[in-house]
Amino acid sequence: MAAVLTNPLRIGLRQERVIPPQSIVIFGASGDLTHRKLVPALFELHRQRRLPSEFAVLGCARRPWSDDEFRSRMATSLASTIAEDPAAWEAFAAGLFYEPADLSNPASIVKLGERLESIDRLRATRGNRTFYLSVSPAFYGSGTRALAAAGLLSDPERSRVVIEKPFGTDYPSAQELNRVVLGCAKEKQIFRIDHYLGKETVQNILVLRFANTIFEPIWNRNYIANVQITAAETVGVEERAGYYETSGALRDMVQNHLTQMLALTTMEPPGRFDAEAIRNEKAKVLQAAHLANESEPWKCCVRGQYSAGGSKNRPITGYRDEPGVNLNSTTETYVAMKLFINNWRWQGVPFYLRTGKRLPKRLSEVVLTFREAPVHLFDAASGAPTPNQLILRIQPDEGAEIKFEVKAPGSGMRSRPVDMAFSYDESFGEPSDEGYVRLLADAMLGEPTLFTRNDEVEAAWRLYTPLLELIEDAPWQLPVHPYEARTWGPAAADNLLAEDDLVWRRP
Amino acid sequence: MAAVLTNPLRIGLRQERVIPPQSIVIFGASGDLTHRKLVPALFELHRQRRLPSEFAVLGCARRPWSDDEFRSRMATSLASTIAEDPAAWEAFAAGLFYEPADLSNPASIVKLGERLESIDRLRATRGNRTFYLSVSPAFYGSGTRALAAAGLLSDPERSRVVIEKPFGTDYPSAQELNRVVLGCAKEKQIFRIDHYLGKETVQNILVLRFANTIFEPIWNRNYIANVQITAAETVGVEERAGYYETSGALRDMVQNHLTQMLALTTMEPPGRFDAEAIRNEKAKVLQAAHLANESEPWKCCVRGQYSAGGSKNRPITGYRDEPGVNLNSTTETYVAMKLFINNWRWQGVPFYLRTGKRLPKRLSEVVLTFREAPVHLFDAASGAPTPNQLILRIQPDEGAEIKFEVKAPGSGMRSRPVDMAFSYDESFGEPSDEGYVRLLADAMLGEPTLFTRNDEVEAAWRLYTPLLELIEDAPWQLPVHPYEARTWGPAAADNLLAEDDLVWRRP
Repeated sequence: MAAVLTNPLRIGLRQERVIPPQSIVIFGASGDLTHRKLVPALFELHRQRRLPSEFAVLGCARRPWSDDEFRSRMATSLASTIAEDPAAWEAFAAGLFYEPADLSNPASIVKLGERLESIDRLRATRGNRTFYLSVSPAFYGSGTRALAAAGLLSDPERSRVVIEKPFGTDYPSAQELNRVVLGCAKEKQIFRIDHYLGKETVQNILVLRFANTIFEPIWNRNYIANVQITAAETVGVEERAGYYETSGALRDMVQNHLTQMLALTTMEPPGRFDAEAIRNEKAKVLQAAHLANESEPWKCCVRGQYSAGGSKNRPITGYRDEPGVNLNSTTETYVAMKLFINNWRWQGVPFYLRTGKRLPKRLSEVVLTFREAPVHLFDAASGAPTPNQLILRIQPDEGAEIKFEVKAPGSGMRSRPVDMAFSYDESFGEPSDEGYVRLLADAMLGEPTLFTRNDEVEAAWRLYTPLLELIEDAPWQLPVHPYEARTWGPAAADNLLAEDDLVWRRP
Repeated sequence: MAAVLTNPLRIGLRQERVIPPQSIVIFGASGDLTHRKLVPALFELHRQRRLPSEFAVLGCARRPWSDDEFRSRMATSLASTIAEDPAAWEAFAAGLFYEPADLSNPASIVKLGERLESIDRLRATRGNRTFYLSVSPAFYGSGTRALAAAGLLSDPERSRVVIEKPFGTDYPSAQELNRVVLGCAKEKQIFRIDHYLGKETVQNILVLRFANTIFEPIWNRNYIANVQITAAETVGVEERAGYYETSGALRDMVQNHLTQMLALTTMEPPGRFDAEAIRNEKAKVLQAAHLANESEPWKCCVRGQYSAGGSKNRPITGYRDEPGVNLNSTTETYVAMKLFINNWRWQGVPFYLRTGKRLPKRLSEVVLTFREAPVHLFDAASGAPTPNQLILRIQPDEGAEIKFEVKAPGSGMRSRPVDMAFSYDESFGEPSDEGYVRLLADAMLGEPTLFTRNDEVEAAWRLYTPLLELIEDAPWQLPVHPYEARTWGPAAADNLLAEDDLVWRRP
C-alpha cells in the first residue's frame, strides 16, 4: 500500500488505482458542501466499489452532534440515492463518524487526533488521513497550522490537506497563505481543489490536444485568430450573498475556473503525463499571460451587475435587491476581459474571458476561432465565409464541435457553414462523473495532477492584480454596468469586442 | 448572350449563370444513357427553370424514328417523373426532335446540319449547339471529324462537343484521340465528361480544402501517413459484359473516377477559381504521380475477379459465368494499387486505390489517415491510440467525418476514439443533384471546370501505363485472383497493405 502512495508521480493518472485504507476528515461537516457534494461523492465511490473496506469518514464541525445524528442527517440528504441501494448505505454509514471540533482551538484538534487513532483501530485505516477544509477561507491557514501543531501532518506519505477555493483573495494573500501551509506540510500534501478540473470535458482539453495529431499543428498564433472562454450561469447570487459581496465574479469564477480553462487550452505539451510536468506547463503559461492593457486595465475589462428582469410571470430580482446584498453594492456579477499571452505560441492572439450570473443560458465553453482563408476562392452563400471554429463544450451538452464550410448544394460553387459535433452523452450513453467524485478519489490517492499547485495559484492571482488593485483603489474607473437579468451582460462588454471587429458568441 | 459564352473563364463557377439558347444534339439517342440519364437530366433542368425557352434536344441514332416516336419513348422512360408535372413535360417535349444520323457517314452529318438550321428557325436557338457523343468510343475521333467536316464546329463560341468515357484505352490512344479532336476544334470546345466530377461531394473536396483554414495546414506529408481511395460497387457486370471484357476495372473506374478523386485530394491550391487554374493544378499533380514500383509494377498492384458467392437463397453468379463473358476471361473486376506523388507536399505518402464489383457495400470515399502523435501521453482504452482520420464520404451517405480521440469517461486519463460527422442530407435536407444535371448544365454554359482537359486525361493514362503494358505483354505477372462475390476482394490486396503494416478500411 505504501508503494501506491509514495510513487504517484511515476504512475500518474494512467491507470485506475486503488484508494488505500484511510480516514477522510471533513471540516465543515454541518455545511452545505458536505451534504450536497462531498458525502454524496464518497457514497458514489463506495457504490462503484472504489473505496476500500478499511475506510472512515469523520465529520467535524462545532455542533455537538453524535455519530448517529451525523449519519441520519446525511441519510436525509441522500434519501433518493439510498432508496436505490439501502444495503450499500448501511455498509457505508457504518464508516461515518462525527467529532465536534474547532480548528481555532488547538486542544480540540489534539482531541480529534485521539479520535482518529481510535477510528484507525476500529476501521483499520492505518493512520492514513485526508483532511478536507470545507470551512471559511479565514481558517485555511490557521486550520492547517492547528493540524500540523497536533502532529497530524507530520507524515507526508500518509496525510493530505484538501483546501477549497478561494485560495487567497489576491496575489499577496495567496502568497502568504502558501507560505503558511507550506510551513506546515510539503506541497505534495496540499490539494488546492478547483471543481472545474474534475469535469471530464475540462480534462478532455488535454486529451483532445495531445492524443490527436490534427489539432496541435494549428493550435497557435499562425492559425488561431482569437479565443473566447465563457462560463455563463442563469442563477443569481442565491444564498451566498454574504460571501459573494466580498468576492464578486472576478474572484469567484475568473481567477480559478476560467483561468484553469485558459491554462489547459494554452499550455505547451508536457514532456510526460504526470502532475509535475503538467503543472509546470500550466504555471509557465499563466506566468506569460497578462491583461491586454496592464497600465490602463479599465480599457480591457468590463464589470456588470444584474438588475431586475425576466418576464411578467417570472420576474427576476435585481442583484442589489437580493437578500444580504448592500443596496449600493458595487460587487460585479459579470466580468469580461481581454488577455494576451506573451510566448511563441500565442503572441498577438486575444483571449476574451467572460462570466456572469443571470445570463440567458447556463453554459461553459472554450471557442477557438481560426483565421480566415488567405484567399477566398469560393463565394460564400452568406457573403463572406464563416471562420472555422473549434468549440470545446465544457457544460452542459458536453462535447466538441467544429464549424467549417462545405459546398452548398446545387449549381455554382458556393460555400456554406456547417457543424460537426461530438457529444459525450451520445457516444458513451452515460453521464460523466460529478467532478467531486473524481477529485476526492484523486486526493485520497495522493494524485495531485488535477489540483492547483502553489505557483499556479499565485500566477493566477498575479494575472488579475491590476484589476483587483483598480477596483480597490479607484473603483469609479471600473464601474459595474447594470444589465437586465436574462441578457448577455452589459453593452460595454460588446464594445470590448467591437473594438476588435468581433462579437461574443451567443450560443 | 454571346458575352456569357465568351467569358466563362473570368466568371468561373462562382455564380449561377443562365444557360443560353441552344440545341443539344445527342448521338446515341436510342441508347441506355440517353433515356436513363441525359434526357432525365435535361428535363430536370427544365423543371428547375434553368433552360431557356429557346431550346431544343435533337436525338440522333441510326434507327429511323420520327420526332413523335422519340418523344413517346422518352416519355415512357420518364413516366413517373412526368406524372408529377405533366404540363412541364408537354412544354419540354415540344422541344424534342429526332433525326436519323450516322456519324460514320459524312452525308448524314451534312443533312443533320440542315435539320439543325431548321430547328434554329423553329426554336430560335441561334446556331448554338452542344453535341453529346453518347456512342461507342470507336466513333469519338471519327465522329468529331465528321462534325467538323460538316462545318458544325467552326464557331468555337457556339459549338461544343461532349465526349463520354473512356477517352482512349491507354496513353498512346488517348494522345492520338486528343490529336484528332483538337485538329477539329479548340480545347475549350471539348468537354470530356467524368460523371464523378458532377457529384456534390467530389466538388466539395475543393471547398473543404480551400474554403477552410483548419485542414490545409495538415494536408501534407508532415501530417498525413497514408490515403485510401475506394470506389466499391455491389453490382456485377450487368448487361455491360461486351464493353467490360475489353475494359476491366482499371480502365473502367481507376483511370477516370479514382484518378479524379486523387487529383482533387492532392492538387495544390489554385491561384484563382477558374477552369484553367484548377485544371493546371490537377494536371500538375497527376504528372507527379507514379506507381509505387514502376519497374516491377506487379509488386504494387493486385487484380481480382469475382467468383460465385452470396447466400443459398440469393446466390451470385461468378464473373466468368455471366452472359457475354469469356469462360476463361482474365478481365479484372477488382484492382488495388499503391501510388506515390513526387512533390514537396506528398513525397513518401502512400496512396492506396481500390475498386471492385460485387463487394459487400456500395461506397466511394477518400480516407486520409494522419500520423500518430509523436508522444503517447495517455493510455488508449484499446491499447494504442487510433490514428486520426478524415473521411470524405463521396457516396452514399454524402458528407465528411473525423475520427479522433477524447478522454474516456471515468477515472484515469485514458483516450477513446470517437467520430464527428457532417451529413449533406441532415444539413441540407435535400438530395444532391444527379451528377449529369450539373455537368450537362455546365457543358451547355461552356463552363469547363468540371471536365477533364487533354493534358489531365493523358497524365491519367500515363500513370497506369506500366500496368496496362504488363497486362498486355505478360499477364501472368499480374494474374486475376478470384474473390468470392460479396467479399472485400482477394487476400493478395490485403497483403499489399500488410507489407506497410496497414489494413484496408472496411466501412
